[in-house]
Amino acid sequence: MSRKKNFNAGPAALPLPALERARDELLDFANSGMSVMEHSHRGKEYEAVHDEALALLRELLAVPATHEILFVQGGASQLFAQLPMNLVQKGQTADYVVTGAWGEKALSEAKVATAMLGGAVRVACTTGTGEGKEKSYVRVPRPDEVKADPAAAYVHVTSNETIHGVEYAVDPSRPFPSPGGAPLVADMSSDFLWRPFDVSRFGLVYAGAQKNIGPSGVVVVIVSKELVERGRKDIPKIFQLRTPAENKSLYNTPPTFGIYMIRNVLAWLKGLGGLSAMEARNRKKAARLYGAIDANPGFYRCPVEKESRSVMNVVFRLPSEQDEERFVAEAKKLGMVGLKGHRSVGGIRVSTYNAVEPEWVDALVDFMGAFAKRG
Amino acid sequence: MSRKKNFNAGPAALPLPALERARDELLDFANSGMSVMEHSHRGKEYEAVHDEALALLRELLAVPATHEILFVQGGASQLFAQLPMNLVQKGQTADYVVTGAWGEKALSEAKVATAMLGGAVRVACTTGTGEGKEKSYVRVPRPDEVKADPAAAYVHVTSNETIHGVEYAVDPSRPFPSPGGAPLVADMSSDFLWRPFDVSRFGLVYAGAQKNIGPSGVVVVIVSKELVERGRKDIPKIFQLRTPAENKSLYNTPPTFGIYMIRNVLAWLKGLGGLSAMEARNRKKAARLYGAIDANPGFYRCPVEKESRSVMNVVFRLPSEQDEERFVAEAKKLGMVGLKGHRSVGGIRVSTYNAVEPEWVDALVDFMGAFAKRG
Repeated sequence: MSRKKNFNAGPAALPLPALERARDELLDFANSGMSVMEHSHRGKEYEAVHDEALALLRELLAVPATHEILFVQGGASQLFAQLPMNLVQKGQTADYVVTGAWGEKALSEAKVATAMLGGAVRVACTTGTGEGKEKSYVRVPRPDEVKADPAAAYVHVTSNETIHGVEYAVDPSRPFPSPGGAPLVADMSSDFLWRPFDVSRFGLVYAGAQKNIGPSGVVVVIVSKELVERGRKDIPKIFQLRTPAENKSLYNTPPTFGIYMIRNVLAWLKGLGGLSAMEARNRKKAARLYGAIDANPGFYRCPVEKESRSVMNVVFRLPSEQDEERFVAEAKKLGMVGLKGHRSVGGIRVSTYNAVEPEWVDALVDFMGAFAKRG
Repeated sequence: MSRKKNFNAGPAALPLPALERARDELLDFANSGMSVMEHSHRGKEYEAVHDEALALLRELLAVPATHEILFVQGGASQLFAQLPMNLVQKGQTADYVVTGAWGEKALSEAKVATAMLGGAVRVACTTGTGEGKEKSYVRVPRPDEVKADPAAAYVHVTSNETIHGVEYAVDPSRPFPSPGGAPLVADMSSDFLWRPFDVSRFGLVYAGAQKNIGPSGVVVVIVSKELVERGRKDIPKIFQLRTPAENKSLYNTPPTFGIYMIRNVLAWLKGLGGLSAMEARNRKKAARLYGAIDANPGFYRCPVEKESRSVMNVVFRLPSEQDEERFVAEAKKLGMVGLKGHRSVGGIRVSTYNAVEPEWVDALVDFMGAFAKRG
């Protein structure tokens, strides 16, 4: 097998050692004579994996005792609805900062969820310009642009916009907002676990697994105990955050194989040196890519403002759509896949999640130089 | 490796060929140089798997064109809330038939979900007797016992109670209710796909995958187009059944590896001769087990009435709890696992899902005979 250089936006590349471990014990997990998929979620063999995944998350991110770590299902898209259902009380409002397509989706679902339960949402800031097909997002806001209501149930941000390639807190001038009284809530689906961050600054962060953590089908939620306790009780039990919080995410059957894969990925990440080492590795990959773009200004163009450029999803345009198609096709011949931009915005997108090897980026950068030279 | 004889209630045994196929291509799916987990859910490689899983379900169950097949997340426990959110209009009532712990849970979540949205639930029949710790369920109702409201949003049944071991339509005298005007909705989590059934009789059936279909983390829903269209639009989009129905269950990232495993399991099932062959195989396994119980009436006792005995989960008691513990421990030494009854009811439970090999049941039956003889 020749392994592809996989730049998919998600589901995305997984670390080879995590996959090899899964393959090697797929039929016989921990000498149990069964696959991990065949174990009861209440048995000691699976429970050890579940506990290890939770412990590794707590260790890698230094999650304080004030916060719970949960595994939930349904993808970040479900959290778009489930969070306001939990956290917006009757008569209350939640603030949203919109910096791209995922922020728009989160806002849209929160509108319906809050309307259903007697609350409301408000846009505290948007960086979108233009309308309809011309709508574009090229930056995250400066802190002074976010007008959050201190009485809001929370202030919601999308820490990295996978489609538009804008990210908070890569450049020091674009930190996460400090909403004062209201808890900060972040959708970190596409930039969770690529670097350390101060969990205590957030009331809640959530991340679909299929970028940096594992296969699709699991969402990791880190939430302050205070927010869990404050959550509404007049919604179905399965949607209350206190349900996984009080049951170690074992209220009902969790996606056991997904959590097992997360354990494998986290063990690999720890083995590489943890999040500081991973941050250095990722920043180097992104710097090489943006360097290749900026080195050919007449050919490659990154629409994103420098201070907002994402380390996880590097987006750029070529002179024409034909050039972009050719770029994708030629790269594919060289074993590089997943480079096509999201269908809603076009262009090229290079996703450089943790499992994307620096050598793959080197190969891509070399190709970019040669391709630009040929024109 | 010596493969265990796995009688787990779920997650449960999977067919060995389905697991071997997953292992063999775990690093290199369909010669793509990537794991199936690393493929985009919008790419042609994954889409072929997704489409094949849907097509196999349609073929195996002869699902009519009037019905959609959906993959959703969150487990059947989420459906307990999501279904009434979709299907019970303001001012409307849904009827529940309660035949065990899962029916109780479905009812309990539906109460909250309907209260949240201006509807209500009603118990159309319960076969429970006793209260609190003494509460027991030993049968499904006779058709004449179910007093359904023809104007109900639907009538909900649990086709097989995994914990209590009672099942509909194993004996001809205990068919599914015919609720007249209201659509019949069935939680088939633990008895989906073990036999053919007439899908057109149901408005909706749903089943968590982790019994007969695949690993945990996916729910299969089969629903009439009419019910999808009638569904409420004032709930978040992610919870509306029309969202997966209109997007081939690809509105957001599905649990791709879980659906891949379902494809593998369904291909195995088709190769074994489909559902009629599977029904014969399963009925034989269950008959052997109930035969072993009834052959030792002084030692083994099945609390379930004969007409309601489940083919999927065979529950029985021994003279004392000490005997039961000894039974589980000695069986374990012989490579038989997953025999302990659910913690809420105790006793022994033998789950005999599709992937449980007839030879495993034979070994267990031999052991049961020898164990009873020794006393």
